[in-house]
Amino acid sequence: MKIIAILGSTGSIGQQVLDIVRAFPDELRVVALAGGKNLNLLERQIEEFRPEVFYSSVKPDRDCAGEFLSMEEMVSHPEVNLVVVATSGKAGLGPTLAALRAGKTVALASKEMLVMAGDIITREASLHGVQILPLDSEHSAIWQCLEGEEGSPQRLLLTASGGPFYNYSRSDLAKVTPEQALRHPVWKMGRKVTIDSATMMNKGLEVIEAHWLFSFPFDSIEVLVHPQSIVHSMVEFADGSLKAQLGPPDMRLPIQYALSYPQRWSNSTLPCLDWTSMKALNFELPDHSRFPCLKSAVDAGKSGGTYPAVLCAADEVAVELFLSHRISLTDIANTVQQTLQQHRSVAQPSLDDVLRADTWAREYAMRFSCGTTERSAPQSDDEGYR
Amino acid sequence: MKIIAILGSTGSIGQQVLDIVRAFPDELRVVALAGGKNLNLLERQIEEFRPEVFYSSVKPDRDCAGEFLSMEEMVSHPEVNLVVVATSGKAGLGPTLAALRAGKTVALASKEMLVMAGDIITREASLHGVQILPLDSEHSAIWQCLEGEEGSPQRLLLTASGGPFYNYSRSDLAKVTPEQALRHPVWKMGRKVTIDSATMMNKGLEVIEAHWLFSFPFDSIEVLVHPQSIVHSMVEFADGSLKAQLGPPDMRLPIQYALSYPQRWSNSTLPCLDWTSMKALNFELPDHSRFPCLKSAVDAGKSGGTYPAVLCAADEVAVELFLSHRISLTDIANTVQQTLQQHRSVAQPSLDDVLRADTWAREYAMRFSCGTTERSAPQSDDEGYR
Repeated sequence: MKIIAILGSTGSIGQQVLDIVRAFPDELRVVALAGGKNLNLLERQIEEFRPEVFYSSVKPDRDCAGEFLSMEEMVSHPEVNLVVVATSGKAGLGPTLAALRAGKTVALASKEMLVMAGDIITREASLHGVQILPLDSEHSAIWQCLEGEEGSPQRLLLTASGGPFYNYSRSDLAKVTPEQALRHPVWKMGRKVTIDSATMMNKGLEVIEAHWLFSFPFDSIEVLVHPQSIVHSMVEFADGSLKAQLGPPDMRLPIQYALSYPQRWSNSTLPCLDWTSMKALNFELPDHSRFPCLKSAVDAGKSGGTYPAVLCAADEVAVELFLSHRISLTDIANTVQQTLQQHRSVAQPSLDDVLRADTWAREYAMRFSCGTTERSAPQSDDEGYR
Repeated sequence: MKIIAILGSTGSIGQQVLDIVRAFPDELRVVALAGGKNLNLLERQIEEFRPEVFYSSVKPDRDCAGEFLSMEEMVSHPEVNLVVVATSGKAGLGPTLAALRAGKTVALASKEMLVMAGDIITREASLHGVQILPLDSEHSAIWQCLEGEEGSPQRLLLTASGGPFYNYSRSDLAKVTPEQALRHPVWKMGRKVTIDSATMMNKGLEVIEAHWLFSFPFDSIEVLVHPQSIVHSMVEFADGSLKAQLGPPDMRLPIQYALSYPQRWSNSTLPCLDWTSMKALNFELPDHSRFPCLKSAVDAGKSGGTYPAVLCAADEVAVELFLSHRISLTDIANTVQQTLQQHRSVAQPSLDDVLRADTWAREYAMRFSCGTTERSAPQSDDEGYR
């Protein structure tokens, strides 16, 4: 039986994790739940799943069953053997490191954490002999394709839906409203990742995530635009053979795989891929000129140091500004690019270096986007950046 | 090191097996070669690979290095740890059973053998704890997709190119000449399998082959027409996830996989799949009305007994008659169907029953096709058929 702690249970992914738990009461048990600001939902989850411990960023007024603990404490709960990290942004960073140090398997949905601190997280995992399981559909696909294979693959092919505006011209992209961008044609996801999908920043972050999850060189990770989102990714092996994983575009499938691994469970509440109506699967190389965020992200990943943390932070600020109608969709790429250019990276950063770079990048990106900084103003030469 | 006996080394598959052996002299060694009537080619192969033993259906005049042995004897050679069976038709049946009894891993290219005597062959394999490795691209694809998976899959999806005439009308199909049919647009194969591919009989035989190789029920094996022949087959698992294996349409890739298994070897002499130019992959359900051989084959497989042996024999006769311009391409299906209808199957047949059914079906199909039998003449009620 998997005894689970869920960090971020009130978010989009967290709720879908609980859908799977609901479907397999004999196989899965939740002993710890951590939610964000949606206290109402968290209270209902606590009532339904009766965890022994819980955490909320807002402390509840009324009494909840179970003990209130910090996320760092709950992941070390002796019964827990699987920690699902589905927090947004960097909130799960400390708890994830705590889970790894406590020897718990971590199922990771939060790609930002691996982008910001992939080196630190994967080093900690290997130090404690702990597996990090991906929850993202693309990385789950790669993981599934790698199962049972000896030796290293020679290429990872990450597929991308291309987002809702893949065929838009540059000038049309600039006119996209937040309301339009939030209506993703294929995937139902949180707001941040939906906008990241429209700019293809999401795919760039996933390239960095794949680099860390599978210890794989950037030059052998390719992106293919595949509008149907049925092939979730592919792996090319040493002999030239490729394996692909296919399924309906529903996050619950990769989530369930991480929870059921190494088994697979039949689940009638999940949609099936109707392969009889699967007429055509299309693939093309991404157009970097219209979607510059993808290349910015991959370049930041290759450069390493604190660049990926800056990428994440600047993107998060820019996406928020876009969602509040203060900048255009295409301005997101400019903000990210400019912030990266002004950054002085720290090689082999500590967690503190990463968090400092994050803070700097948020401030810079905000000032840049809101026109309160000179576009060429260099980053202040404080102690963190040499 | 794999020490190999190759049965059928002068055929299309056998020659491609030797291509792989040539590329990996440190990993693969041939100690036994058996060829058919192409003595000239066999002699050249013997000169190049210097096997310790050889066999030819025509005994060579001049002295060859190595000892002349029957195929049954050579597969039991103490050094051999892998027997590649690439003979055509039923010639490899006895030697394959001998190899299994001697505890040798068998790599099987000859689908007819599993169709005729799948029950006998797989029973022998499991009795001696021996693995049968597929060389066919579709079955290799399924095998590759199953590697590392726990539990049974819920569906096998065999892909079919549909052959060169997939979009022809019924009346146009009747006018196809042997010369046209031998020009397969995608796969380079032997003559028999090329014609079987044009009638889709090949895919029907492969469904039966899959049934035996993976002990999988017929009702959960589906055929999808996929003209590009890039996805070589797919497997659907219990949770609804699918895995597909992709590669260029070249038999040497699945052949090499069977020889390198469980490793994968980099081989610069093999073509690579150019995924950057992989624009679209199409899939559709087969049209049984224009390609009735597919359903005849699956029905014969489901009926079991000696029906599949009769299917194979009648098809072989009909294909030969088509190639010698004596019947039309669409007559192949009629001949097979009529022979199956007239057959009285033996349940749980012995090898003798299978061979008797084969002989009967050849005679009946020949007489039927050449108009020397009443179309409704019942099979003679001899001892083999009750």
